[in-house]
Amino acid sequence: MSRKLIAPLFDRMPSLVPFVGPEAQERARGRAFRARLGANESQFGPSPRAIEAMRAAVDGNWMYSDPESFELRAAIARLHEVDIDNVVVGEGIDGLLGCAVRLIAEPGDRVVMADGAYPTFAFHVAGQGGALSKVPFRDDREDLEALLQRAKSMDARILYVSNPNNPMGTWWSAADVDALIARLPANLVLLLDEAYCDTAPAGTVPRIDVTNPQVLRLRTFSKAYGLAGARIGYCIGERSMIAAFEKVRNHYGINRVGQIGALAAVQDQTYLQQVVAHIVGARDRIAAIARDNGLTPLPSAANFVAIDCGDSDVARNVMDALLARDVFIRKPGTAPLDRCIRVSCGLSAQLDIFAAELPSVLQSARA
Amino acid sequence: MSRKLIAPLFDRMPSLVPFVGPEAQERARGRAFRARLGANESQFGPSPRAIEAMRAAVDGNWMYSDPESFELRAAIARLHEVDIDNVVVGEGIDGLLGCAVRLIAEPGDRVVMADGAYPTFAFHVAGQGGALSKVPFRDDREDLEALLQRAKSMDARILYVSNPNNPMGTWWSAADVDALIARLPANLVLLLDEAYCDTAPAGTVPRIDVTNPQVLRLRTFSKAYGLAGARIGYCIGERSMIAAFEKVRNHYGINRVGQIGALAAVQDQTYLQQVVAHIVGARDRIAAIARDNGLTPLPSAANFVAIDCGDSDVARNVMDALLARDVFIRKPGTAPLDRCIRVSCGLSAQLDIFAAELPSVLQSARA
Repeated sequence: MSRKLIAPLFDRMPSLVPFVGPEAQERARGRAFRARLGANESQFGPSPRAIEAMRAAVDGNWMYSDPESFELRAAIARLHEVDIDNVVVGEGIDGLLGCAVRLIAEPGDRVVMADGAYPTFAFHVAGQGGALSKVPFRDDREDLEALLQRAKSMDARILYVSNPNNPMGTWWSAADVDALIARLPANLVLLLDEAYCDTAPAGTVPRIDVTNPQVLRLRTFSKAYGLAGARIGYCIGERSMIAAFEKVRNHYGINRVGQIGALAAVQDQTYLQQVVAHIVGARDRIAAIARDNGLTPLPSAANFVAIDCGDSDVARNVMDALLARDVFIRKPGTAPLDRCIRVSCGLSAQLDIFAAELPSVLQSARA
Repeated sequence: MSRKLIAPLFDRMPSLVPFVGPEAQERARGRAFRARLGANESQFGPSPRAIEAMRAAVDGNWMYSDPESFELRAAIARLHEVDIDNVVVGEGIDGLLGCAVRLIAEPGDRVVMADGAYPTFAFHVAGQGGALSKVPFRDDREDLEALLQRAKSMDARILYVSNPNNPMGTWWSAADVDALIARLPANLVLLLDEAYCDTAPAGTVPRIDVTNPQVLRLRTFSKAYGLAGARIGYCIGERSMIAAFEKVRNHYGINRVGQIGALAAVQDQTYLQQVVAHIVGARDRIAAIARDNGLTPLPSAANFVAIDCGDSDVARNVMDALLARDVFIRKPGTAPLDRCIRVSCGLSAQLDIFAAELPSVLQSARA
């Protein structure tokens, strides 16, 4: 009955859910997870100063937040040594990706990404009627050379690259990314998703060049900063590109408590570095658990580790068995990445649960 | 340099800011407002249970919120006696309006609203490349008959109506709105913005009919519920129309603290009714202050009162003089509504400041 009311693009489109949340799985199972290691959140939490600031902010939640996120943008700008006009804040990187796709790609325009990279980006391209072209991973990394060639050959408007990459945790050096940037064709915008850059080794993050309108850098408070619930991401870029976001963004989309928490978090870089050390420790622990069980952990620069289970059936069985034992993890859905499971860095007690369950889970998964 | 990188629609479009926030004004002025009576927030605040729930939620802000907002949608559905599949939650009504416009109107499609009604809706239509047609207010109300005729004559896809209306506070009865709904042409969707309905007199809100895909009802926690900072709105409609939102909404756009606060707020209808009584009292007080100063308050069903200052120059002068005396109010920008100032319901001490400043402000504004 309502078919004619929805625009043709969406009427034709299947329903899409980028990620089913653990809460939905808990409702379906009828019981809670014991370990929450699937969403790449940070169990180490945000800075205590952010916790304190958010608690103090609750009483003021009758007020709208500053729609310009002025203080937060100023603090971000100081951190990255750019101007405040080079920064826009959005409802997570997800919200900013949606805005960027709408600003840059018209319906039918070509967009290129790695096959198996962030499904939410593909979701936004579909919602804009973009023509998405996917390039296979190569050696478990996004294939920068092939991505560039595909973008050139298709005259694409957007190239999406994540560094470090989700879901594999692999990464390129700053020099490699800079070499890509230097070769971008004139009409292409690189959306460089650096959600996981805070936990990457030195030399991974290219210098920020806000004179180049062809590169938009995307960052988040959801990962190492430990504020996934706050829904605050930001984009750094050349000022006219950042100004364009004003034409599509939800000006009053940022919640007050999250905005205040993110400000306190960005101002506590000492705490961030402590957390990064904890994450690196957890990464090593997950890798050791994998090896102890005869599995191969992939090197990771992110706050999770992809573990190679040999083939996709085994990986699927391992994930399902862990879920059945109340351990929430996820796995890549695209071949050949789908031979892996993905385990988020978490507190020791949570990794203990994973370590305790994995041996018998593997035994049954291989049977 | 970046012109070619932005899609033509946005490259051509001027920068738009629907509402400059009071914080930006404070930064420009170099000092804080003493009274915050311009953004139609609720100084009476949310339910104490919501405050308590949000404080308790802060420690869990390292986790993403449930992207389905299941518990919140279930509580909203119970309140309105609809199914959970008839409810979608978004980042305020603003976020939902943006989604709805994209889902329904293709670039070039006609959209109709009242001239002087919610600028953020016009912003979203512009961002979709819609062809917006505006119908003058009549007797300070949205002119339902003229809006319907305009939508019919233009073969519009969307008709936006707010009831009660912002910025005038005027309203139609449920019977009037139902009569409009009964006459909608087959291809038109009515976006019925009921942000201010919680403070309206009995008989203002039409019964919710979720069998009709042509009507989407928009509600918010930002006004009477006192949670503007939480950025939580919702839309009620026929299930296939609500399901379509899954194709464009930011699935992880809802912040965890706000989601938990809104759940507690919607479950405390007793408190909501107490607040509504306070708001009605504040409305009467603002009207009395206006009359004491020889001005004409408009009848209001909302959490603010529009005050007729006689002509637009006087109204502009009054607003500017109040702002200069640290009293934040706003005013309609479109003739003939712009002869009014708009004052939000607030705590007595805040209205005292307005009452104290208005007489001398008026004297100079008329000079």
